[in-house]
Amino acid sequence: MPVPAPNLYPAFNIVRLSHVELTVTDLAKSRAFYVDTLGLQVTDEDSEAIYLRAMEERGHHCIVLRKGDTASARDLGFKLYDEASLDAAEAFFRDKGLPVEWVDRPYQSRTFRTRDPHGIPLEFYVRMDRLPPIHQQYKLYRGVKPLRIDHFNVFSPDVDESVAFYNELGFRVTEYTEDEETGRLWAAWTHRKGGVHDIAFTNGTGPRLHHTAFWVPTPLNIIDLLDLMSTTGWVDNIERGPGRHGISNAFFLYIRDPDGHRIEIYCSDYQTVDPDLEPIKWDLKDPQRQTLWGAAAPRSWFEEGSLFDGVTPHEAALKAQPIIAP
Amino acid sequence: MPVPAPNLYPAFNIVRLSHVELTVTDLAKSRAFYVDTLGLQVTDEDSEAIYLRAMEERGHHCIVLRKGDTASARDLGFKLYDEASLDAAEAFFRDKGLPVEWVDRPYQSRTFRTRDPHGIPLEFYVRMDRLPPIHQQYKLYRGVKPLRIDHFNVFSPDVDESVAFYNELGFRVTEYTEDEETGRLWAAWTHRKGGVHDIAFTNGTGPRLHHTAFWVPTPLNIIDLLDLMSTTGWVDNIERGPGRHGISNAFFLYIRDPDGHRIEIYCSDYQTVDPDLEPIKWDLKDPQRQTLWGAAAPRSWFEEGSLFDGVTPHEAALKAQPIIAP
Amino acid sequence: MPVPAPNLYPAFNIVRLSHVELTVTDLAKSRAFYVDTLGLQVTDEDSEAIYLRAMEERGHHCIVLRKGDTASARDLGFKLYDEASLDAAEAFFRDKGLPVEWVDRPYQSRTFRTRDPHGIPLEFYVRMDRLPPIHQQYKLYRGVKPLRIDHFNVFSPDVDESVAFYNELGFRVTEYTEDEETGRLWAAWTHRKGGVHDIAFTNGTGPRLHHTAFWVPTPLNIIDLLDLMSTTGWVDNIERGPGRHGISNAFFLYIRDPDGHRIEIYCSDYQTVDPDLEPIKWDLKDPQRQTLWGAAAPRSWFEEGSLFDGVTPHEAALKAQPIIAP
Amino acid sequence: MPVPAPNLYPAFNIVRLSHVELTVTDLAKSRAFYVDTLGLQVTDEDSEAIYLRAMEERGHHCIVLRKGDTASARDLGFKLYDEASLDAAEAFFRDKGLPVEWVDRPYQSRTFRTRDPHGIPLEFYVRMDRLPPIHQQYKLYRGVKPLRIDHFNVFSPDVDESVAFYNELGFRVTEYTEDEETGRLWAAWTHRKGGVHDIAFTNGTGPRLHHTAFWVPTPLNIIDLLDLMSTTGWVDNIERGPGRHGISNAFFLYIRDPDGHRIEIYCSDYQTVDPDLEPIKWDLKDPQRQTLWGAAAPRSWFEEGSLFDGVTPHEAALKAQPIIAP
Ligand SMILES: [Ca+2]
Ligand SMILES: [Fe+2]
Ligand SMILES: [Fe+2]
Ligand SMILES: [Fe+2]
Ligand SMILES: [Fe+2]
Repeated sequence: MPVPAPNLYPAFNIVRLSHVELTVTDLAKSRAFYVDTLGLQVTDEDSEAIYLRAMEERGHHCIVLRKGDTASARDLGFKLYDEASLDAAEAFFRDKGLPVEWVDRPYQSRTFRTRDPHGIPLEFYVRMDRLPPIHQQYKLYRGVKPLRIDHFNVFSPDVDESVAFYNELGFRVTEYTEDEETGRLWAAWTHRKGGVHDIAFTNGTGPRLHHTAFWVPTPLNIIDLLDLMSTTGWVDNIERGPGRHGISNAFFLYIRDPDGHRIEIYCSDYQTVDPDLEPIKWDLKDPQRQTLWGAAAPRSWFEEGSLFDGVTPHEAALKAQPIIAP
Repeated sequence: MPVPAPNLYPAFNIVRLSHVELTVTDLAKSRAFYVDTLGLQVTDEDSEAIYLRAMEERGHHCIVLRKGDTASARDLGFKLYDEASLDAAEAFFRDKGLPVEWVDRPYQSRTFRTRDPHGIPLEFYVRMDRLPPIHQQYKLYRGVKPLRIDHFNVFSPDVDESVAFYNELGFRVTEYTEDEETGRLWAAWTHRKGGVHDIAFTNGTGPRLHHTAFWVPTPLNIIDLLDLMSTTGWVDNIERGPGRHGISNAFFLYIRDPDGHRIEIYCSDYQTVDPDLEPIKWDLKDPQRQTLWGAAAPRSWFEEGSLFDGVTPHEAALKAQPIIAP
Repeated sequence: MPVPAPNLYPAFNIVRLSHVELTVTDLAKSRAFYVDTLGLQVTDEDSEAIYLRAMEERGHHCIVLRKGDTASARDLGFKLYDEASLDAAEAFFRDKGLPVEWVDRPYQSRTFRTRDPHGIPLEFYVRMDRLPPIHQQYKLYRGVKPLRIDHFNVFSPDVDESVAFYNELGFRVTEYTEDEETGRLWAAWTHRKGGVHDIAFTNGTGPRLHHTAFWVPTPLNIIDLLDLMSTTGWVDNIERGPGRHGISNAFFLYIRDPDGHRIEIYCSDYQTVDPDLEPIKWDLKDPQRQTLWGAAAPRSWFEEGSLFDGVTPHEAALKAQPIIAP
Repeated sequence: MPVPAPNLYPAFNIVRLSHVELTVTDLAKSRAFYVDTLGLQVTDEDSEAIYLRAMEERGHHCIVLRKGDTASARDLGFKLYDEASLDAAEAFFRDKGLPVEWVDRPYQSRTFRTRDPHGIPLEFYVRMDRLPPIHQQYKLYRGVKPLRIDHFNVFSPDVDESVAFYNELGFRVTEYTEDEETGRLWAAWTHRKGGVHDIAFTNGTGPRLHHTAFWVPTPLNIIDLLDLMSTTGWVDNIERGPGRHGISNAFFLYIRDPDGHRIEIYCSDYQTVDPDLEPIKWDLKDPQRQTLWGAAAPRSWFEEGSLFDGVTPHEAALKAQPIIAP
């Protein structure tokens, strides 16, 4: 099954991925990871939750850490262009027979929750409280100097289905991995905001959240983070990298938070705003697909992910396997 | 006059700035500058013209150098989303009483030329020949490793008028400089593609092209270019920088090509896709506006620019002056 | 007068420059500059003095800030190879009729003070208290991430005389500036430790301390410092740069501390351990001598310096002038 | 057996490691690796050999590639301070009963060959032809921008013995790895020139040459090399890294030349000129010893090395094993 032609006229206008809420079991430990180590900025906190933003973001939060008994991922948040889009989106999901629930989200205007066909919880809204810019308050920069949330990556039990659905929502494929044998998609990167992706799909037991990525200024900031983590008790939380992705051409590092939620640090992909941009195809068996420099990803990277709260994942239909580090 | 509210629903959809044609008096010398020194890639050339693209671009050209008797700038090119936008754009300019002329542009689909109200020549098209990606052919990277065209900056004899017009076209203001005394705009940065700008306007004798900017990976590439230019006969073509802009927070360098056309090398601005992004206001008298580190720009930077072919510029009405280096 | 042949067999073995004491008028303000902004580490402090080291140094201090009524520079400290060298050095200075005074310096073994022929106060010692390494405690890195003291630069009223004297001490010239007209030295860079210099001499009213330099990892750390200083109230303390030196090929920035003492941030010069390394000659009128990229230094850089405590400087005999920024 | 006290008064003065000759089986292929990919500069070549220098070196060669039927390493070259040192060195080796042979080496003054007690071929000389500086000819910089040869690393069948011998020659230990169980040295880093090492010893079947290292400006140059090698047919020649060493704190990458000779690209270690610098001890079982970030080295890195021409290596007595990647 080939990649579908991009839907250039979706029923509503999704601007970009916006935020995610993660349930964590020890707020203090998570704060040490996200705030003291990564360098995200606290915009609100109490005994139940911590709201964070990255350095160039003006919206109130890109990640919410909420205390819970079990680690899990909650809604993936997306920002819509306007209220008309919000209403159109509601209608769209209802028409698909997917659940729509209007919810109260602090610091966000009118927000509804829904699910994608595999059960991934999504939330849509138009406006979030805007905070004063801090990107030129250089004394606040710490850790990896995170600039903005960049993308989600989710395990999908059927990447062809996921791509078809998100394509309908206007997400355009920039790069994809095909299983040569079956001709099926093994992974795909899809965007709204003009980078390589807002959300990517990886074949595997799903739906589960594979990772959330933050954009940083340069590869040297990633090296700084590695040096810091290695000497402050976080060395075992380094999972994969640093390296250059074949796909996206970005420079990357994967780390795990205290509950195992995976975070990618990412920079240097390319501009994709052209509606006639051709997707780039990769073969699942190409060792440079994952890492341009040839290093394979470890087994944990292919198998572990965060459960979405209350969602039971299913094994993927496609059994094709990528190259895994010994 | 305050910055106008953004027009979120323009009559047609401009994707991004796309390309510019510069008339140069010595093609070989210009080739030495743009190809051998900056590192742009030749996609076509003959005795009359050289077509160039940057490393991550898939469109055929972002800059065209054309041999001429006198140096000048020709059309500023913009890419539209679809054919419907092209027709709507044509209607829009005709309605304004502005000239519309369908032209033949190699490697571009149906293209029309027009003028903005101050006389700047613009061209609009939807599709350009797509070339195979070269962003992972690292042996081709040279010079400053230019990744893509980033923006135009033009002298405007009336920045308030320019902003009002481009606002109608859907360009959204991200940052601006106000003359405190008159309350008038002295400069403004406006975007379509989600960066700080596709086109900026600077108060001055205009219209003239102030500069064309290219995006590069990191500030270190700019340092590499300075080292290279300084030791290959181009030291006098370094005009201003390197530095961090107050406005845009980008890292920059301004250089002049063999005919005096100004090129900016630029990186590290921020994402602006949110329709509710608040513009940032700067005071003309703020010394950190131009360069966050306090260095003033030289007189040439404020006074010199490329004439648009066949367009006679007019002095600006607003006489307010920025800080100029002694 | 040409550069003297290097003295490869000096009477005693100076390992490297080691430290300097600066008198400052407001310890708290100086602490904000050196500790909070530059990122030097406090190794001792009380109400009268602050001892600092850089990140890879194991010796107790490279700079001592001492409270005083008037800003001044005190002894330039050098580390000797062994006690035999210390005794030989004492004899050497006494033989020259220069004053030798054994002094008590906290954290240093047996130390004597003397003067060079122009009156610069020098101190020599063999051992300083060694502290545990902190270069892999990455959480301590701040500001410009200073790694080690790199060199002193002093105004000399007669550079030929200075070079002749320090040559006798075993300092080897790596680069020098000649006044073409008189054939006299206008400036010279001389080393012991295998970099471009431990101490350099600049023609001017002297002796005065022109600057003390710290080595940092990469040019990006200098950009980070500029961004930090620009947004924390230190923008007026930025004097010159950033840039690439013609001489030394190093990347540099000059800043001024709260009392006007000049600090250079410096990286990327080259290895000079070969005894047969040929000095590189520069013409005083070469604009790329100061800054490879062509920018001239400001007048303050040529005229201002720190007085050595109790030493009255004299005008330089050589009146030749370098290029000065307008 | 503890690390011996440094010999601060060796019988002769070794300035630094200088060069090595490698026998290669295909000169053209090796040229593609060392010149076109790494960016070393050819200073002489004919059908039998290629002489190379790095960008800041003024000596004629740091590596000589010589055509041969079998790949092997030949003499490790060291530069001495003066002719008196050369004579003293000759006497020293003769006194030890080690073979001394005066040889003719193009571009070098009087040179003798000898062996260390394990059979490593060494050569000593005082002067090499000096070439004009090219470090500011930035158009010549290519590949990884190699600045200078930095160190050798050799497999030793008895590291305690190697350290004892080289200590007598004046090499000072900066860091070392001890096998906790036996108290024996498993590896040691020893220097003459003021960096972490001129030569290091690794426990293993030896003597064999483990690698030759080149110093580059910043970690970003190493990333550039990885991108280049990955996309020009050299991806399989990437062996280990990039990473930060625990030992030395340097940033590194290990690659293999077309014959399997191992080259390290290296930067960012620290200054070690102080005679009282304390060596840093590491435990063989510390996973951060090899790579601060925790990644283990692959088996090939521990087992493979270049044979010295005509020397049969012996198994190491010490059987202790480091952590090896699965
Ligand atoms: Ca609250
Ligand atoms: Fe990702
Ligand atoms: Fe610009
Ligand atoms: Fe200096
Ligand atoms: Fe090494």
